Amino acid sequence: MSTTKARKLKQLVQSPDLTFLMEAHNGMSAKIAERTGFEAIWASGLSISTAFGLRDRNEASWTQVLEAVEFMSDATDVPILMDGDTGYGDFNNVARLVRKLCNRDVAGVCIEDKLFPKQNSFLGEGQALLTIPDFVAKIKAGKDAQTDPDFCFVARVEALIAGRSMQEALDRAGAYTDAGADAILIHSKKSDSVEIEEFCRQWDNRSPVVIVPTKYHDTPVDVFRDLGVSAAIWANHAMRAAITAIEETCAEIYRTQSISAVEKRVAPLKDVFELTGENVFEEFAQRYSA
Amino acid sequence: MSTTKARKLKQLVQSPDLTFLMEAHNGMSAKIAERTGFEAIWASGLSISTAFGLRDRNEASWTQVLEAVEFMSDATDVPILMDGDTGYGDFNNVARLVRKLCNRDVAGVCIEDKLFPKQNSFLGEGQALLTIPDFVAKIKAGKDAQTDPDFCFVARVEALIAGRSMQEALDRAGAYTDAGADAILIHSKKSDSVEIEEFCRQWDNRSPVVIVPTKYHDTPVDVFRDLGVSAAIWANHAMRAAITAIEETCAEIYRTQSISAVEKRVAPLKDVFELTGENVFEEFAQRYSA
Amino acid sequence: MSTTKARKLKQLVQSPDLTFLMEAHNGMSAKIAERTGFEAIWASGLSISTAFGLRDRNEASWTQVLEAVEFMSDATDVPILMDGDTGYGDFNNVARLVRKLCNRDVAGVCIEDKLFPKQNSFLGEGQALLTIPDFVAKIKAGKDAQTDPDFCFVARVEALIAGRSMQEALDRAGAYTDAGADAILIHSKKSDSVEIEEFCRQWDNRSPVVIVPTKYHDTPVDVFRDLGVSAAIWANHAMRAAITAIEETCAEIYRTQSISAVEKRVAPLKDVFELTGENVFEEFAQRYSA
Amino acid sequence: MSTTKARKLKQLVQSPDLTFLMEAHNGMSAKIAERTGFEAIWASGLSISTAFGLRDRNEASWTQVLEAVEFMSDATDVPILMDGDTGYGDFNNVARLVRKLCNRDVAGVCIEDKLFPKQNSFLGEGQALLTIPDFVAKIKAGKDAQTDPDFCFVARVEALIAGRSMQEALDRAGAYTDAGADAILIHSKKSDSVEIEEFCRQWDNRSPVVIVPTKYHDTPVDVFRDLGVSAAIWANHAMRAAITAIEETCAEIYRTQSISAVEKRVAPLKDVFELTGENVFEEFAQRYSA
Repeated sequence: MSTTKARKLKQLVQSPDLTFLMEAHNGMSAKIAERTGFEAIWASGLSISTAFGLRDRNEASWTQVLEAVEFMSDATDVPILMDGDTGYGDFNNVARLVRKLCNRDVAGVCIEDKLFPKQNSFLGEGQALLTIPDFVAKIKAGKDAQTDPDFCFVARVEALIAGRSMQEALDRAGAYTDAGADAILIHSKKSDSVEIEEFCRQWDNRSPVVIVPTKYHDTPVDVFRDLGVSAAIWANHAMRAAITAIEETCAEIYRTQSISAVEKRVAPLKDVFELTGENVFEEFAQRYSA
Repeated sequence: MSTTKARKLKQLVQSPDLTFLMEAHNGMSAKIAERTGFEAIWASGLSISTAFGLRDRNEASWTQVLEAVEFMSDATDVPILMDGDTGYGDFNNVARLVRKLCNRDVAGVCIEDKLFPKQNSFLGEGQALLTIPDFVAKIKAGKDAQTDPDFCFVARVEALIAGRSMQEALDRAGAYTDAGADAILIHSKKSDSVEIEEFCRQWDNRSPVVIVPTKYHDTPVDVFRDLGVSAAIWANHAMRAAITAIEETCAEIYRTQSISAVEKRVAPLKDVFELTGENVFEEFAQRYSA
Repeated sequence: MSTTKARKLKQLVQSPDLTFLMEAHNGMSAKIAERTGFEAIWASGLSISTAFGLRDRNEASWTQVLEAVEFMSDATDVPILMDGDTGYGDFNNVARLVRKLCNRDVAGVCIEDKLFPKQNSFLGEGQALLTIPDFVAKIKAGKDAQTDPDFCFVARVEALIAGRSMQEALDRAGAYTDAGADAILIHSKKSDSVEIEEFCRQWDNRSPVVIVPTKYHDTPVDVFRDLGVSAAIWANHAMRAAITAIEETCAEIYRTQSISAVEKRVAPLKDVFELTGENVFEEFAQRYSA
Repeated sequence: MSTTKARKLKQLVQSPDLTFLMEAHNGMSAKIAERTGFEAIWASGLSISTAFGLRDRNEASWTQVLEAVEFMSDATDVPILMDGDTGYGDFNNVARLVRKLCNRDVAGVCIEDKLFPKQNSFLGEGQALLTIPDFVAKIKAGKDAQTDPDFCFVARVEALIAGRSMQEALDRAGAYTDAGADAILIHSKKSDSVEIEEFCRQWDNRSPVVIVPTKYHDTPVDVFRDLGVSAAIWANHAMRAAITAIEETCAEIYRTQSISAVEKRVAPLKDVFELTGENVFEEFAQRYSA
């Protein structure tokens, strides 16, 4: 390869153009996102834990999440940005995580400034935040630990989620950028993008900005382009699409006691085998047969 | 609990009524299958490996598959029958697997009489079969290893898949039943159920029969009822529904550069949180708060 | 079995006699401790992390530690008390851990009232402690989560380690006992047992007391018997013996460029094979051969 | 780094000088072997499975073994040659293993030409061997899969172990070398080195030769030097030293009901903490503190 996954992600993040990261939660959905054309993938903590059947509260261990992300990395050639929650501990745990991600060819990690065990940003009010110095320690330790020079450390500012002031969000973003973060993810749970726009104007592109428009989904992306946003994350829609489809398919099979009608609507087995590379295997089998 | 998952599965398998097992491949899909009303779940090897992004060729280790099944077991109260492929080795590996499954409250395992590493039954022709004595050793070792007296060992006969005779299928089923198998899964890749019907007539319910109508999906289930079939497995349709839904959702988001339209069709976040028990957590949080 | 591992541990802890738990850190050392005659095993967090090559700072994930303990449980019939550090998170993580331990037939867990990620009690001064209400929540959630009625939850009081007063140690022990803890582990890093003796006298056996005499190793055990101590943990000596032996063996082999002299001192291969049950396998192989 | 672990191993293997690889089975023993001065480490399958408490019969999954080796790789800077048994399946499983090892900075793998699940070479007689074409497929697939150009694939010839002729051993070694193996490990369970010497003379250094003198331990290493042997593996002596030391320590503590005498002989806690890098942590903590 002439380039690396980490370099690709870094270029996407640093480029003036708006990029989109599609959520995936296992090797299968990551492969589909790549085949669709997305240039990068968001390994969502919410989606991975939901797929496990667990709450988005660090119920899975960090190595269980890491293994899910490794399957995703193995299945694809586009870069993956891992949702690393709060880093599963202190600066030391973050450093360890970053080394493991570099080994597994994961292009970057996003760490948020809340406390472990985290809770989902859309649940509850007034969530506690880590102090700035302690979060800065995580950024510095993470950056020092990377073995791939292009690995991206995205610092996620939860100040607005926690009900803190715009000024605190900006202060935190500034401190995190000074500490070496490659980009700032500013998160909002408002149903419009007013506070995101305000943040972007005041931040004035001191470093690349990443957003997650899950709640303000009706804002046209040109608004984000005009603000100079670097990347938008479609954060959990593959997982949510899967839930709906599995619910409907289960319901119809249960009701009709038959897979006959469903058969025409679900992916044919041929596509399933193609998705995981059975055709490639056939080549292997021939190449290595006596 | 007045009963156990293993006892429930044993009752379903031994009852004269036809039961349906719905495929699931992670905690999320298992939970959905249970909520739909299915009385039992099929932890499909094809689906679990596809979800990992891997081929159905034992590319994942057996402990990786076991962990996926453990997440499924933790997420549900209905019994799970695990697709254990060929048992990941010899009789000793099967015994070890059975003990681990009992520990994780998985109700039963299905082991097939092909060779390790397995390949999917719908791929290729004339797949090699294990000798009857070696497969009998797996059944005996598995049954001796179970720590739950109701654990179900389903012996999967691949003779018809491999192009062997009906007589060999019957001979194998007989030997496996004599060795202690709790049920026989007779597999066919024909697009009609003629050979399944023939097997059932000749087998004459010497022990419970389980079928997988993936290819002969148009046969009405009453045909299976009349044959005295014990259980039918809808073997991979949750996974295949997820693929289609994720493909369509990715494509639309990619094309429109927006999640706005998709938002109305995918499961709302509220449902996502409910699926993994956020409401239960709130109760916990109150109970254990000072 | 007429009894269970958890019941055995509970009986040992509740009996008026002083019991000893020997440290182990993998299946091999657990098996050796059992063969020696020890009635129970301490799955030390320090030893397990050191064996991994990691610091005693929760660098390994909780599922990696759990897997090490599962190997230990599989290898032995005597009960294991797992060193669960601070429980790897909040009350919810503790509940999840307890369920997993019950599944794996681990007889009990010891949780300490420090913060995650923990640091070893013999390092540093004035370590921070969790608030009493937050630790009580862990105890209650853990006890509610156990699926084995005899599972032992040992609450480890780190007040003396942290330089707090004897009164705080007693207050914490009282609150933890009221919350449902099956025993109190009172820890001390003094080189004599004065503060342990003082605690025991004031505590007056309100509930069973467990101690770890790593630092006050010269106190004769009859002192502990007179104090009514329930169990003493020999907390890390198998691991430390292994380090010394491996160091000496490596050094001699390196120096002499030969294993000839060493051969006579290390365990013969015959013993290695016996330790893991090769003889049992031979029986299996015969029983299951055609 | 100016060089890589894989390059170091390749240089050691290809150099005319005799090198020694010391066995290790976890991060702790790997670190000790490195500190002793050994230039490379043998991640022994027998030792790792014994440490788990399991038989050397592929009872542990390949990912469990991989994780043990990853801990070893993380703990050390010297190259590790992993004992990959028979490769845990077919050519496809070998390819997957090699990719995972490259990711984890493991310098090489040794694959043997027996069947899965393997049994230890010192147990039983007349063990079955894989056909040459099927083993050649494993070598080719493994070499094609390596992402590190210096990764070492060592082909282990079990012909002499299995009671086959010297000619078959030579034929197999030839076929494996032609297929791309970087070195040949010729194994013998004789108590003298006669057959090893015979092999080496006839092989005449067509490619580097690796040996495992566990049984012929009294042969002076100068004999191997004269034969042009590339590397000798001290294959399980750290593990066996640990067994003896743990047995003796357990026995003494059990007998005396005291750790007082033992305390002076086992590694002091200070050394334990140093082994896992507590001093390095202190530097980190200062660097990243506010």
